[in-house]
Amino acid sequence: MHLQRIWTTQLGEHTGQRVKLAGWLHRLRPLSQVTFLVLRDAQGLAQVVIEEPALAAELAKLPHESVLSVEGLVVAEPQAPRGVEIHSPSIEVLSESAAPPPFDLFRPTLTGQLPTILDHAPLTLRHPRQRAIFRLSSATMEGFRAALRSQDFVEIQTPKIVASATEGGANVFKLDYFGGPAYLAQSPQFYKQTMVGIFERVFEVGPVFRAEPHDTTRHINEYVSLDAEMGFIEDHTTVMRLLNGVLAGMVATLAETEPEALALLKLKLPQVPETIPQIHFTEAQELILRETGEDARREPDLAPAHERFLGEWARRTYNSDFLFVVGYPMVKRPFYTHPDPTRPGYSRGFDLLFRGLELVTGGQRLHRYEDYLTALARRDLEVAPFETYLEAFKYGMPPHGGFAIGLERWLARLLEAPNIRETTLFPRDLNRLAP
Amino acid sequence: MHLQRIWTTQLGEHTGQRVKLAGWLHRLRPLSQVTFLVLRDAQGLAQVVIEEPALAAELAKLPHESVLSVEGLVVAEPQAPRGVEIHSPSIEVLSESAAPPPFDLFRPTLTGQLPTILDHAPLTLRHPRQRAIFRLSSATMEGFRAALRSQDFVEIQTPKIVASATEGGANVFKLDYFGGPAYLAQSPQFYKQTMVGIFERVFEVGPVFRAEPHDTTRHINEYVSLDAEMGFIEDHTTVMRLLNGVLAGMVATLAETEPEALALLKLKLPQVPETIPQIHFTEAQELILRETGEDARREPDLAPAHERFLGEWARRTYNSDFLFVVGYPMVKRPFYTHPDPTRPGYSRGFDLLFRGLELVTGGQRLHRYEDYLTALARRDLEVAPFETYLEAFKYGMPPHGGFAIGLERWLARLLEAPNIRETTLFPRDLNRLAP
Repeated sequence: MHLQRIWTTQLGEHTGQRVKLAGWLHRLRPLSQVTFLVLRDAQGLAQVVIEEPALAAELAKLPHESVLSVEGLVVAEPQAPRGVEIHSPSIEVLSESAAPPPFDLFRPTLTGQLPTILDHAPLTLRHPRQRAIFRLSSATMEGFRAALRSQDFVEIQTPKIVASATEGGANVFKLDYFGGPAYLAQSPQFYKQTMVGIFERVFEVGPVFRAEPHDTTRHINEYVSLDAEMGFIEDHTTVMRLLNGVLAGMVATLAETEPEALALLKLKLPQVPETIPQIHFTEAQELILRETGEDARREPDLAPAHERFLGEWARRTYNSDFLFVVGYPMVKRPFYTHPDPTRPGYSRGFDLLFRGLELVTGGQRLHRYEDYLTALARRDLEVAPFETYLEAFKYGMPPHGGFAIGLERWLARLLEAPNIRETTLFPRDLNRLAP
Repeated sequence: MHLQRIWTTQLGEHTGQRVKLAGWLHRLRPLSQVTFLVLRDAQGLAQVVIEEPALAAELAKLPHESVLSVEGLVVAEPQAPRGVEIHSPSIEVLSESAAPPPFDLFRPTLTGQLPTILDHAPLTLRHPRQRAIFRLSSATMEGFRAALRSQDFVEIQTPKIVASATEGGANVFKLDYFGGPAYLAQSPQFYKQTMVGIFERVFEVGPVFRAEPHDTTRHINEYVSLDAEMGFIEDHTTVMRLLNGVLAGMVATLAETEPEALALLKLKLPQVPETIPQIHFTEAQELILRETGEDARREPDLAPAHERFLGEWARRTYNSDFLFVVGYPMVKRPFYTHPDPTRPGYSRGFDLLFRGLELVTGGQRLHRYEDYLTALARRDLEVAPFETYLEAFKYGMPPHGGFAIGLERWLARLLEAPNIRETTLFPRDLNRLAP
């Protein structure tokens, strides 16, 4: 009889039947009377009971991580993981590991310094805890897209090779494009705004590149940005409501699709409030002065310590992991930011803090052609490099705005991981280009 | 009363009611007694009847593409598009176009040379036909992902900045990475194979970069690749079955979610056969000799003209738009290609032709560490640049394979567009870096 392979997580549905599993030799535990083989597949683990001494001896010769196919009888066993185990197995070696792996993937957590763990990502990502993180990454992207598609957003993929380093000055990677200069896009900002003229509502999930020479636990040089942009908004609050719903959708998708990964990571998902609380930038500064004694009222931005303080304050005051800070000073926001008409100098831009860390930046953008010309002139920027971008505004653009969520940063805060590299699949930083 | 804005495509559900629309001034047609305003939003068009001469005069002063909000009464009118039009409108100008657009977006097709149309993409993409193409792009990505997620595939996002130009020799973009060299990834090949060790089944939708100095209608230098990779396969036929199902899923999603775009483009979707017909590379060569008199049996690859011939042959013989060509010679396939054990010199690699053009490349890969060392040595390649890649195979990897579909090429063949730039949102080629 030719058996169809099943996942280890499906064993419970097959008690009393012979089944076929396949996966990696995760662990081998020889006891006095019996040997336990733990097999790992993409979904989970299964315990296989080896009673035949010859087979046990054979398996003992294989390095961990060898790839096996196992046929056997599913037997209920309350002591075993998921309450079932495999008896009377016949085992085929599909691919033998060429060497014993330098990490014990079967221990509850990986031991080793982070750089070493990252150096060996092809192996260390196989650890059930590590890979659970990137199942959450996959589900986050899916939840983000589903939330937006349900509101008629259209997915776009925009170029990563761009003609000019227009958006953020020096922090841009330069490349050789058939003998001429080109740059890696720091964000899809200009393109997603342009696409508002076509689809009104667009989103993109893709890589962005920042040549920031900072070696911190919060920065990487290539990351995945979850971008959305929307036309016909009232003001930045329309965008904030959209983001509020998208976050709720992301969390709901994680809860629905990844219960096992969440359980393995002992992760409690945050509650996304019906309406995320907000505070104006200037009020935040007053609050910081009043409660911490530190006067940051001359600063055009929030220091990381003050973001942490506000995160704690939001938790205390609103029982919320999330807090909008709105109305950042225009001087610290990009030229396309829409000012607050009622408070000159302040913007219709916002940050969303998640557990005291900036997770999302967003806001309303300028939409009138003349306003762009004025904004560029005010910053002493030439018009020429922006010409094709400006064409979008020249021919009629509605009030619009959007936001960008950093995928790896979202995961880092969700897991309360001290270093963003722990939630980046193959991180790129000042010193790391491989694997 | 504050009206909620609705889409133009929802008008039919509101006959006899006052509604609010918003969008672009797509066209203004003054007749002797009445003026017709055609309003375009993200979903479609609506006809607004202007009977008030003052209002008509006001509108006549606005350039096309100005952004309007329109409130009015929905009236059934069999002559109007969708059988409804707006009467007694009150109109607010949200944003005036700064100049009359240099293209008539209301004509059935855009007139102009392709380079000019591409130069003005922020405007020309607003044409209903143009944007319909990119709605199909969005739906294709969604269909691709849905088909794979339903089979337990996990989504990954892998780095686009890589340490070495390992995959395809010269055709790689080089960049300055903090003073040292780095390259843009030509594909996620090495990463998706590595991730088979972690999730068994993975997919990625993202940009790939090819520094090919070819100026053809089939090549662009940055495109979107729909990549999948799967472990525990029997051989390349498992991958072909997977791809067959994924294509069916993509076509089904297009049919379900984009009927309006398909109708606008007068596009008949291809039928994906239950089992796509296949032919071995050597049989294809014999067939070409027999039917065309051209002897290509010494060639290690198929010429474009021969691919076209095979496409016509598959249509005639199997009534299929799709044809698998399997068993390409090893010499033309990358080093990680799995050979056919029964036919030395030939591979377990395949191409999928769609209407006579190569759309997908795929196959089984090597999975044993020693096989990689042998394959690299045979091609005189050093092991060092592949070290982290090889780690995936060193520690046990199952038989696996995968494929990559070029998104823009898929759309080009679907639309039978003569130039791939017509189905690329913002194309990058030898001479084009903007918009």
